[in-house]
Amino acid sequence: MKITVLAVGKLSEAHWRAAAAEYIKRMGGELTVVELPEVSVPRGASAAEIQKAIEKESAAMLARLPRRAYVVGLFVEGKSCSSQALAQKLEQLPLRGFSEVAFLIGGSYGMSAAVKAACHELLSFSPMTFPHQLMRVMLLEQLYRARSIAKGTDYHK
Amino acid sequence: MKITVLAVGKLSEAHWRAAAAEYIKRMGGELTVVELPEVSVPRGASAAEIQKAIEKESAAMLARLPRRAYVVGLFVEGKSCSSQALAQKLEQLPLRGFSEVAFLIGGSYGMSAAVKAACHELLSFSPMTFPHQLMRVMLLEQLYRARSIAKGTDYHK
Repeated sequence: MKITVLAVGKLSEAHWRAAAAEYIKRMGGELTVVELPEVSVPRGASAAEIQKAIEKESAAMLARLPRRAYVVGLFVEGKSCSSQALAQKLEQLPLRGFSEVAFLIGGSYGMSAAVKAACHELLSFSPMTFPHQLMRVMLLEQLYRARSIAKGTDYHK
Repeated sequence: MKITVLAVGKLSEAHWRAAAAEYIKRMGGELTVVELPEVSVPRGASAAEIQKAIEKESAAMLARLPRRAYVVGLFVEGKSCSSQALAQKLEQLPLRGFSEVAFLIGGSYGMSAAVKAACHELLSFSPMTFPHQLMRVMLLEQLYRARSIAKGTDYHK
């Protein structure tokens, strides 16, 4: 299974970069992270300006979406699932005709309705809001955990 | 509000230590993290051996519990809430007679029934399982976020 994470913004803190790098390394060649440019929004920006930034970031994301991938968008209003259920879902994708999956993480202000419409599924990790940099680390950890559940290794216990 | 985080185990990776330190620094003197010893469990340990380790870790935790604190245990089977709701709950604790709150995070194998019984509330961040080191970082971030929501600063938006 080829896994692509499309994420808006850079990991600005060294500790998030180190945490992300550790999980990417453990995944071997299975996982690719594509960082998309974050559009800067000035303090006190209007709702319209924020919407414009979301649209621009989201258009860039849609342009980089792998064509044949099963697309999972991370939205706080998505459906939550256990680590086991996520692992099972990924394992069953080939049976549903997908050999590739893409996970989408928006920037500070989220993703557009067009991105949402392009998703096969909306996934929520938590009803809590996390900074998108930490969210990326949490996603990478869950992908590594899903792989370890599928392979039956000890990590996830 | 005095906040104590009681957590089993050390943060073994430098990136988790750096992430945790950043949030602790931002919280000023409001937050104390108490690390409790993790009891090592050999590979292939029996259920009884694991239970013994849990009991030992949990007994040490109960011994360090601040006496007058409102106690929140992090359990995957707990109730989830939004960041806003967590912030509100913390804000309202003084009205309920609590000037101190303690958050409990178990080790790799969780916490005992006695710890659960000592909690005023069981909180779940996600139906997903996270390593307890990352869980600690997620908790510290939410505590910092709650404070920023209460103070009306920009961080949480």
